[in-house]
Amino acid sequence: MMNNHERTWNELGLDVSLHNELLKSIDQTFQQTVGAQKDRPEAMKYFDDALHESHSGRVTEIIKARKKGKKFIGTFCIYVPEEIAMAADAIPVALCGGTQFSIPYGEKMFPRDICPLIKSTFGLALAKICPYGPIKDLGVGETTCDAKKKAWDVVNFYVMEVPQKKGKLDFDLWHQEVIEFKEKVEELTGRKVESSRLSETITILNEKRLALQRLNELRKNDPPPLSGLDALVVMQAALNDEPIRFTKQLYELNEELEERARKGVSPFTKGTKRIMISGCPSVMGNWKIHSLIERAGATVVIDETCTGTRYFENLVDNTAKDLTGQLRALAERYMKINCACFSPNNERLDAILKIVKDYNVVGVIHYILQYCHGYNVEAIRVSSMLKQAMIPNLKVETDYSTEDIGQLRTRIDAFLEQLD
Amino acid sequence: MMNNHERTWNELGLDVSLHNELLKSIDQTFQQTVGAQKDRPEAMKYFDDALHESHSGRVTEIIKARKKGKKFIGTFCIYVPEEIAMAADAIPVALCGGTQFSIPYGEKMFPRDICPLIKSTFGLALAKICPYGPIKDLGVGETTCDAKKKAWDVVNFYVMEVPQKKGKLDFDLWHQEVIEFKEKVEELTGRKVESSRLSETITILNEKRLALQRLNELRKNDPPPLSGLDALVVMQAALNDEPIRFTKQLYELNEELEERARKGVSPFTKGTKRIMISGCPSVMGNWKIHSLIERAGATVVIDETCTGTRYFENLVDNTAKDLTGQLRALAERYMKINCACFSPNNERLDAILKIVKDYNVVGVIHYILQYCHGYNVEAIRVSSMLKQAMIPNLKVETDYSTEDIGQLRTRIDAFLEQLD
Repeated sequence: MMNNHERTWNELGLDVSLHNELLKSIDQTFQQTVGAQKDRPEAMKYFDDALHESHSGRVTEIIKARKKGKKFIGTFCIYVPEEIAMAADAIPVALCGGTQFSIPYGEKMFPRDICPLIKSTFGLALAKICPYGPIKDLGVGETTCDAKKKAWDVVNFYVMEVPQKKGKLDFDLWHQEVIEFKEKVEELTGRKVESSRLSETITILNEKRLALQRLNELRKNDPPPLSGLDALVVMQAALNDEPIRFTKQLYELNEELEERARKGVSPFTKGTKRIMISGCPSVMGNWKIHSLIERAGATVVIDETCTGTRYFENLVDNTAKDLTGQLRALAERYMKINCACFSPNNERLDAILKIVKDYNVVGVIHYILQYCHGYNVEAIRVSSMLKQAMIPNLKVETDYSTEDIGQLRTRIDAFLEQLD
Repeated sequence: MMNNHERTWNELGLDVSLHNELLKSIDQTFQQTVGAQKDRPEAMKYFDDALHESHSGRVTEIIKARKKGKKFIGTFCIYVPEEIAMAADAIPVALCGGTQFSIPYGEKMFPRDICPLIKSTFGLALAKICPYGPIKDLGVGETTCDAKKKAWDVVNFYVMEVPQKKGKLDFDLWHQEVIEFKEKVEELTGRKVESSRLSETITILNEKRLALQRLNELRKNDPPPLSGLDALVVMQAALNDEPIRFTKQLYELNEELEERARKGVSPFTKGTKRIMISGCPSVMGNWKIHSLIERAGATVVIDETCTGTRYFENLVDNTAKDLTGQLRALAERYMKINCACFSPNNERLDAILKIVKDYNVVGVIHYILQYCHGYNVEAIRVSSMLKQAMIPNLKVETDYSTEDIGQLRTRIDAFLEQLD
């Protein structure tokens, strides 16, 4: 007998039995990492649940919204301006895969030596275990790395061009891409983006960013009132959840964390070594590196990644009163994301140094998803800058598998030992 | 006792002894591949010599020119408009490395899992065995792939932004990059690019392209009057040699080839299986895949690569009478290069199909330099299109080492056997 969710997945054409295996596999990893932590904030329950509901409750919610005429947009990069999609009555959700489970399926179509995130993402679709695939009205890719850029051609997604320098014409190009994205979603939903509604969605996402900024401010405490792993869970939920509800729940978490900070409640003791993770994102299903670092006795106090600062820093200026000004403000805000796709990308180096100082970081771990050339090669410059600033740093290149965990643990242990 | 060339290398600060080892290693590979062929055209001698002189005679020539006030520009991509550099009294030379010898040195600084071309190139510089490094007045990189794009940041090269789509704003961006490149080389050389001189350099490079087109036209004969390996040697020389001299020598080769074609002289018999190589370039030092295919009894009749059609197809329109028009014509010509960096890149697919037909190709080998995500992922679409057109094709992913030769030979043999 199928339960309600299984019936939904079945109706979507999923391989229900394989999908159950997937959920079991992800939950197992979750329990071994996130779930195995002690002294977690009470309010984390919502975010744990949000991850667990991401293939069930959240999907049902989107199916219902689609029945009422909304359109569902799958995205794969934080460069896609969600405000615009929402203002045109679409629901944008980041669909990046963070699970090893689906990678062998991705490798049936794509080369093995591209990054695990891409293989995991496409593997979910190809194995018919992604409930978002069948309800997706539009896939929006971008050009931030070679492998993704070329993958969009294969699956015929809409592509937003993120430029590669930060000059005036680059901004103009990006600005135009933002304008064309608005036209594309309007065409998809049949609804015009109105300035008043866009102002509302800008507010919604700015408030979400502010709440995430507040959460991360709290991590500046010594000891931090929550683990880096829990902060990551919140970020992963941020990429999937309905934003108004998410922000409301995050307020509650932040209140609890403030209370904990006042009382010095933390999974860590004062003086625990404070680590920054810098580089590639850790999307849902992937808790590997945070877990390894924190089990080794340090704490991850900030993520300079797309599941970290790059997602929530910089608000959209919401003072413009017309669409023209709003679209420009959106283009400006998103263009500030210091993705490794830019050459040069000095702003990222400056940002890293500032974060190190602000968060009292004693060591940086460059987190490189295997075959991610952008962050891997950029780590040369980042590392050289950190060395000059006397900040120890370690480059870790890994995928989603558990095979290298022993080796990683040894390297991370050795790195942490040398920190003051 | 050092000979003259060794003295030059010594003055340039090279590691002369290691450099001698490099030359020996490259010549050994050359003799085992190019040199081992039978029935080669007489006029190939010049091009063989050009390769052998690339670290000696050609370097001395450039040193002399620099003493007379010329500037030397190292490039790494056929997207850099050489006409402009030459018109400003600079000498542009493509400096891409095709030798395994230098890769371990490149891997000391760069990740192991980026493409061999980049590691080989930087390895030559890092090991002090590239005579071009010390005489380089400007390094010009571009943004055609992640690994190269980020590598330029590390070495602080001038970067030309090649866009990623083919729309109007993309062209405007590229056009602006071409204009700024002119300003950059003018600043470097202290000489203004004059319209009359630019018209001359456009003619010089158009004539070079025409001669290469003629060479490739001759490969349409069955049997072709020269091997694919020899055609590759000519292309490799094209990237290094002084263009006027090169074109003059190519005229001679073409005449000999016409004569051979008339008489049916060829290293191959009529009916030899006709192969196209498609994908990544094979730069100087790298004769691996062509040699394997031709030793297996087939013939490479055309290269759809940056050391093939993408280098010599499309002339620059030289009808404009002023700089403005000329720079636009240059931007237009270079923008037609169907690099895998574009999304989508349908023009490349169309071009491949046309080449298959024009050259009577019976099988396509996708030549993918290891970790080149762009051409690797794009091969999915190319392969699917070729399958529809009933053209057998094989994807070969390899580096510059000899370790996989046995395995490659087996795969290539099996592929060739199934061809009609």
